[in-house]
Amino acid sequence: MENRARLFRELIEDTKDAVGDSCGVAVRFAVDELLGADGITAEGEGREVVEMLAELPDLWDVNVSNWSNDSSTSRFEREACQEKYTAFVKEITSKPVVGVGRFTSPDTMVSQIKRGVLDFIGAARPSIADPFLPKKIEEGRPEDIRECIGCNICVSGERRAVPMRCTQNPTMGEEWRRDWHPERIPAKGSDDRVLIVGAGPAGLECARALGARGYSVTLAEAGDALGGRVNAESRLPGLAEWVRVRDYRISQLNQMPQVEVYRDSKLSAAHVLEFGFPRVVLATGARWRRDGMGRRNRKPVPGCDAGNVYTPDDVMGDVAIPGPVVVFDDDHAYMGGVLAHKLRAEGLDVTLVTPAAQVSEWTRATLEQFRIQSQLMNAGVGVVTCKNIVAVEKGSVALACVYTGARSQLDAASVVMVTARLPDEALFLALDGDPRKLADAGVRRLECIGDCHAPATIAAAVYAGHCYARECDQPESTDIPFRREFIAMDD
Amino acid sequence: MENRARLFRELIEDTKDAVGDSCGVAVRFAVDELLGADGITAEGEGREVVEMLAELPDLWDVNVSNWSNDSSTSRFEREACQEKYTAFVKEITSKPVVGVGRFTSPDTMVSQIKRGVLDFIGAARPSIADPFLPKKIEEGRPEDIRECIGCNICVSGERRAVPMRCTQNPTMGEEWRRDWHPERIPAKGSDDRVLIVGAGPAGLECARALGARGYSVTLAEAGDALGGRVNAESRLPGLAEWVRVRDYRISQLNQMPQVEVYRDSKLSAAHVLEFGFPRVVLATGARWRRDGMGRRNRKPVPGCDAGNVYTPDDVMGDVAIPGPVVVFDDDHAYMGGVLAHKLRAEGLDVTLVTPAAQVSEWTRATLEQFRIQSQLMNAGVGVVTCKNIVAVEKGSVALACVYTGARSQLDAASVVMVTARLPDEALFLALDGDPRKLADAGVRRLECIGDCHAPATIAAAVYAGHCYARECDQPESTDIPFRREFIAMDD
Repeated sequence: MENRARLFRELIEDTKDAVGDSCGVAVRFAVDELLGADGITAEGEGREVVEMLAELPDLWDVNVSNWSNDSSTSRFEREACQEKYTAFVKEITSKPVVGVGRFTSPDTMVSQIKRGVLDFIGAARPSIADPFLPKKIEEGRPEDIRECIGCNICVSGERRAVPMRCTQNPTMGEEWRRDWHPERIPAKGSDDRVLIVGAGPAGLECARALGARGYSVTLAEAGDALGGRVNAESRLPGLAEWVRVRDYRISQLNQMPQVEVYRDSKLSAAHVLEFGFPRVVLATGARWRRDGMGRRNRKPVPGCDAGNVYTPDDVMGDVAIPGPVVVFDDDHAYMGGVLAHKLRAEGLDVTLVTPAAQVSEWTRATLEQFRIQSQLMNAGVGVVTCKNIVAVEKGSVALACVYTGARSQLDAASVVMVTARLPDEALFLALDGDPRKLADAGVRRLECIGDCHAPATIAAAVYAGHCYARECDQPESTDIPFRREFIAMDD
Repeated sequence: MENRARLFRELIEDTKDAVGDSCGVAVRFAVDELLGADGITAEGEGREVVEMLAELPDLWDVNVSNWSNDSSTSRFEREACQEKYTAFVKEITSKPVVGVGRFTSPDTMVSQIKRGVLDFIGAARPSIADPFLPKKIEEGRPEDIRECIGCNICVSGERRAVPMRCTQNPTMGEEWRRDWHPERIPAKGSDDRVLIVGAGPAGLECARALGARGYSVTLAEAGDALGGRVNAESRLPGLAEWVRVRDYRISQLNQMPQVEVYRDSKLSAAHVLEFGFPRVVLATGARWRRDGMGRRNRKPVPGCDAGNVYTPDDVMGDVAIPGPVVVFDDDHAYMGGVLAHKLRAEGLDVTLVTPAAQVSEWTRATLEQFRIQSQLMNAGVGVVTCKNIVAVEKGSVALACVYTGARSQLDAASVVMVTARLPDEALFLALDGDPRKLADAGVRRLECIGDCHAPATIAAAVYAGHCYARECDQPESTDIPFRREFIAMDD
């Protein structure tokens, strides 16, 4: 043990020698690998290492590994979930201790400090969602915190080597490129009143950001609740925290007298023309396809119109689905896996079929894939990978191996198609056909944002709403609308 | 059809309008998607599009899609494999036509031109392997061409967002970073004679590059043939072209009187000391493990010593293996899949078991995964994914699901373990223990390169041999030994 810890010890000692009193030396150490007896555990070698080196670093930064355990999503772990592993550290060292665990609530943070679990609160993802989180606590306005929802869209940017995004904070990654400050936004550039149709993630953020700029905004929602898709999705198993996308924005809108919100207000094209707002923003969302078309099937799957095929919207709308049910996942993000889990929990015989090699394959990017597939298999969900659905028949589905084309049959009283979404663009099409009618009504600009423009992530919808609010009064540019980085050769 | 081709046509027309006579406008068009009736075919819409736009571009650049079809490896396609799809184009247009198809041999290229198949030869991968390919043809020295082996290690760099490498050309990607010219190399920096032990990819390239610098080199190979692992691996199904790694270097060494090559010359530590070369380079390679340890199993798998467990070296060495055989692939590159294919072709009942979700999962990076798994399944190889091997028993293996741990049993008279390799470092350990003995013998520098230093790809071994030859006489630097690119913010 002494030998195995030698490199760690000497690195700290040599670093301290090198920096002297000029700065503190912090070390991060994962006290538990969550591998049981096959790895370091908090009760075993993790504790021993901290005991051996207790007073050596100036700051202990302790967590669990690997990354998927350290940065687990809200779907699988609650806030402060690392406490049971790291709490022992402060008993051993007199040095300050920092820890993580997706701390999003000031109350939980204060509790950690007061109970002596930690001296400092580490919070990377919550700071991505709201870089001014500590400031808002200091200023006594916790209701203004944009709480991290724990979706790991931020992590997915890292994993796929694309710019990082945040579902809650659309300015993330755009601070320099577009000069978007996470808290400050320029005052309005005109006195145009704006009508926003649809109060999902795109519409809510658009209204909030336009309101923050001082615009007069009317937000009309067809349903009786604000939130759009996050209302439905946050009721799915594990996704409760996603409702914060809605709640943060409602709480901000409630502080804005210049934004009027109307529920139960389904607008027709005639209504929009009659109101005659100079700016109209459509954020009417999207619906899941029922015909099986998606990544794998470029034509409708035969039999999809026979009445036993359901969509995720049906499942989220509590339509009764007879078993045995096949969930066909050609979407590969969270939806297929979470619906299979929900239907299985309701007692149905469920098989998830996917052309991918893994359940919810895309969730490798959010560090969730292993947990999702384990959860489903342990719950008794059948898993059939590398197979496409080629026909829905009475009482069964016909499958084809994606490698060989070999056909097989699977019993199914019903099928849930999780393949792709179609924009709800009826209102746009009704308005867009006649530019003169729009002009006569006083509507100078008509635009679609979010899922009704291009179905995508919730993060993309929030971004679209924010982007509209920032840029609607900027001059149109033919240049690239953000600043680029250039590679300079060091010759 | 006219409408679907409109964007393509107008892009070409507008581009021609914009550039006028200042330059030619070339278009690349994939005339066949290799999707049969579900896509564009060379006999159908591919031909129609070329007919419609025949005289519009100044140059037709034609190929097949998607990328895995366009850039297929030598394992699955021969040189000039796109001719059958693209040959029709020259019958239709009077404009010059360029095509690709991993052209590596001057004879094939000339044949394409003479037979009127193409006007220009496109060759990206062959130019990565040898940027001076056209020059060498012009100068009448085709024997100096470093022919592309079609392994797609170049493509894997792109797919994994890391610097591009080439198995045949170790200077690839280092032209600017390290100032390595693909053809020119500085003259030797000392008169040290160099002994290289082992004539695999690392040893051969090291001898060739040192010889090109003017060093006196003695290359000693224990076996009766030069080539090391490429000798064995190029005899596996589909990998015949890999032997070019050996043949190019042997042909170059044959032109170098200052390099002496000895076969059947297994050297002991006593031999090395007795010879007393000032520089000794060990390139003794690696052997596959038999104990099942690797990515998934961090301890030996119980039962691996019972006599029915084989390694890839056994299979490549034509050891007789009784069926039914389980090939356990925890390596995930080409080896597991290619051995399963070979054993199945020899008539054995074969099942490939892997903890990964796909056969030869890493070969997604070389665009081969789909072809490999299809080939195996169509050949009747059983495929069991997402399962680890936890014990070898008499007549069977015990498996565990990587998601749930659930145990299962699989009949197996024998097991081939494709998990990890161990460096052949016996000679190094025998020499390295006593620095004084080395000094007394006149050996000033002793180093390991290639697989005996760290088992990796053939490309990495060739790189290691080249790097030693370039840098052995350079002063040691504590600085980063290559030039970096810096991001300049455009503010």
